[in-house]
Amino acid sequence: MFEYLRNPRTVAVVGASPDTRKIGNAVLDNLIKSGFNGQVYPVNPSYNEIMGLKCYPSLDHLEKGLDLVVIALPAKTAVELLDQCVRNLSRFVIIIAGGFSEIGQEGRMLEEQIKVKIRGSQTRVIGPNTVGLLFPHSGLNTALTPSNRIYYPGKGNIGFVSQSGALGLLVMDSITEHGLGVSGFVNIGNRADVTEVDLLSMFAGDPYTKSIVLYLESIADGEQFFSKTKEISKKKPIIVLKTGGSAEAARAASLHTGAMATDDRVLDGILKQSGVIRAYDEVELMDYGKALAYQVPPHGDRMAVVTTAGGIGVVTTDLLTTSRDGIKLRMASFNESEKAELKAHVLPIASVNNPIDLTADGSTEAYESILNILTESDNVDGIIAYALPQTPKIDMGIVSALKEAAERKTLVAGVIGYRLATEVLTELEKAKIPAFPSVRRATDAMKALYRYGLYKRRLESVS
Amino acid sequence: MFEYLRNPRTVAVVGASPDTRKIGNAVLDNLIKSGFNGQVYPVNPSYNEIMGLKCYPSLDHLEKGLDLVVIALPAKTAVELLDQCVRNLSRFVIIIAGGFSEIGQEGRMLEEQIKVKIRGSQTRVIGPNTVGLLFPHSGLNTALTPSNRIYYPGKGNIGFVSQSGALGLLVMDSITEHGLGVSGFVNIGNRADVTEVDLLSMFAGDPYTKSIVLYLESIADGEQFFSKTKEISKKKPIIVLKTGGSAEAARAASLHTGAMATDDRVLDGILKQSGVIRAYDEVELMDYGKALAYQVPPHGDRMAVVTTAGGIGVVTTDLLTTSRDGIKLRMASFNESEKAELKAHVLPIASVNNPIDLTADGSTEAYESILNILTESDNVDGIIAYALPQTPKIDMGIVSALKEAAERKTLVAGVIGYRLATEVLTELEKAKIPAFPSVRRATDAMKALYRYGLYKRRLESVS
Repeated sequence: MFEYLRNPRTVAVVGASPDTRKIGNAVLDNLIKSGFNGQVYPVNPSYNEIMGLKCYPSLDHLEKGLDLVVIALPAKTAVELLDQCVRNLSRFVIIIAGGFSEIGQEGRMLEEQIKVKIRGSQTRVIGPNTVGLLFPHSGLNTALTPSNRIYYPGKGNIGFVSQSGALGLLVMDSITEHGLGVSGFVNIGNRADVTEVDLLSMFAGDPYTKSIVLYLESIADGEQFFSKTKEISKKKPIIVLKTGGSAEAARAASLHTGAMATDDRVLDGILKQSGVIRAYDEVELMDYGKALAYQVPPHGDRMAVVTTAGGIGVVTTDLLTTSRDGIKLRMASFNESEKAELKAHVLPIASVNNPIDLTADGSTEAYESILNILTESDNVDGIIAYALPQTPKIDMGIVSALKEAAERKTLVAGVIGYRLATEVLTELEKAKIPAFPSVRRATDAMKALYRYGLYKRRLESVS
Repeated sequence: MFEYLRNPRTVAVVGASPDTRKIGNAVLDNLIKSGFNGQVYPVNPSYNEIMGLKCYPSLDHLEKGLDLVVIALPAKTAVELLDQCVRNLSRFVIIIAGGFSEIGQEGRMLEEQIKVKIRGSQTRVIGPNTVGLLFPHSGLNTALTPSNRIYYPGKGNIGFVSQSGALGLLVMDSITEHGLGVSGFVNIGNRADVTEVDLLSMFAGDPYTKSIVLYLESIADGEQFFSKTKEISKKKPIIVLKTGGSAEAARAASLHTGAMATDDRVLDGILKQSGVIRAYDEVELMDYGKALAYQVPPHGDRMAVVTTAGGIGVVTTDLLTTSRDGIKLRMASFNESEKAELKAHVLPIASVNNPIDLTADGSTEAYESILNILTESDNVDGIIAYALPQTPKIDMGIVSALKEAAERKTLVAGVIGYRLATEVLTELEKAKIPAFPSVRRATDAMKALYRYGLYKRRLESVS
């Protein structure tokens, strides 16, 4: 059923408009620009044509069984239109409007009507109070922010579910910087019907999705969430940014989406038992999503660090071996023959202890040789490799060197700097190597990978 | 004395070369390109002219009392040349070469010779094993990395001392992204002579420097460092990234610069007593440096958060009110008349509780009015304001609105996203408003400001 959401054949936009101040304008524009291959039907009784597409006076004028209907009209009108959707046998309806449970009693009653109207029908509702959704592999973008205000990610492997619309859009805009894509994004909003659990199942079954990331301010149904994440995380990693951990944030969250927050310690235990990786801000959420989409977890905690900048290696060692959220890793110890091998590829002044510091003399070739030794070593479970293009002998060949190593052993890359660094980060993204612009982000991503591996090994040991 | 280091009238580059593979080439090139107004003397017996400048066979052919001599030649030659420097009455000598104490016993002996040779003279040595220094306000750049590999920051207010050269260069490259500048950068390297304490004093007396940031793997002289930081931090904030906190990192650090690391817990206590703010990675170091250079600390812990994206406000509340390194802040409570005033500037669906969520309807004008109310409020000590240009009614006017508010109350800005966000971050940087591209970085910067304020208030209460 949810395959019609992520790859609909037909999409109607009710409230489509040529007026750029209207949300129905941006939605239709995004839908057209995103390269959607299915049928798009603008619906608005005031126009015969919008953006070159034939416009229909109402849903009743369209074929039965639309896969997706986007309602870009105010709250009350949107709810009334649900009758038409049900009559049409529409599969999915997105209600964009706010003005529901998040504004109090009156809104809650209106939201209740959504449930009543679709009860017993085949129609499912996304929202209300949602910015829409994005499925780049289907060329589907129903978001309400015009594409001159925001960059939408391209095809990728992260399934992203967000309870907050604006946060979702901003995070997606951010990740386009180096070209990170998503397999899909859905803003569940007030989730009168479709919840995070439905979408977890959808992304679990989606072949493009390699990891699932969720931004939640509350959990619709704790028991269901627990059993579903537990089941899915055995196959696909799930990362959750759950806010409302502090009492003050819980209050802020309830004002924002009208939802009650769960006790944070209880939740923490549940998430750990279900194998869910926890993120604590919007950057970690996507960083972990990327790391877990692109790399398999390390088999153990022995890390090798390669750098051409000694200080960066020292900071990395500090952060890797310091506990964060209960996880700390160890620095791998090389045996004498490995040390001798490593020594052959570096200057006498370079260090072949761990971190391996090639110094500013380090070349792409030396790097490649070092990575070969590390991927072969039984003493190394994971590699953090700094691709620092400011070093004169490091060129873009570093990307394929890292790519090859990443196929053989868990690897996370770090790139520090501005222009050249941005170029390398973009190339690493194309090669689907998890790469990060700071030591903390690189080491935290490795810890997220390790945490997921730990969970999987525990599962295996009890089964 | 140290004013000759940050603003020399004469600089000689010994080992200057037209050969782009030589370090003496990059140093001379950087010096010329950085717009240095003083006299530059290339020194190399093989050339009469380099890069259009008259070249001298040796230091003995130059005027006496050079302010700065950069030696871009190998370790042994560099040490031998010190005799000429002393004879010349040179004030400062930078020895770039590695191959000293960081490589073991032989190197340690060579490094010892540096101390012996300058003993009793007026000559002070920076390094050895240093990438050089940068003082943008004097147009001085003696760094060894060519400017096509790295962007050097422009004029700014952060004094940056780094024990690691490569880390220092990479961090400087990074901060140019949105235009953050420095008042100066010195890589102390093996600090055979000039230590972090000398440079702390120099930056303390430099009118351009508003905050001092240090990357240290070890501390040259604990007692001296303690008393000097204690004295200086009363007037200028000092931020330290001290690595080697874990036993493994301490080992890594000793391999890198040949220095012994201090016990981390002892150090932590000393730093807290001296009012030094501690950073834990290279990003925090400059983030805190920027926040403390641009803003005065809040008078208390009551924070107001303004956003046009509700979810961002919720994440902020979570991170602000959760302890990080012992600091957590409170969400300000507005009184009824403040709430009424705030309410007048937002849609009915917007929240005027804290965080104040203007929703996607929030305009620059509304933002300005809200900020006015917050800066006037006795219930608010600090403001975290998200300038989110993806919201349709937020325009570049947001920068001057934030600027005005930041002059009246401690303010940290957050901007999430890519293209438009980068534009806003760049404008905020020009306006010297501390702005950050993630919730964590914004909230951590506010906590750093708060920590410094706490220290200053404690000082006042005991004096």
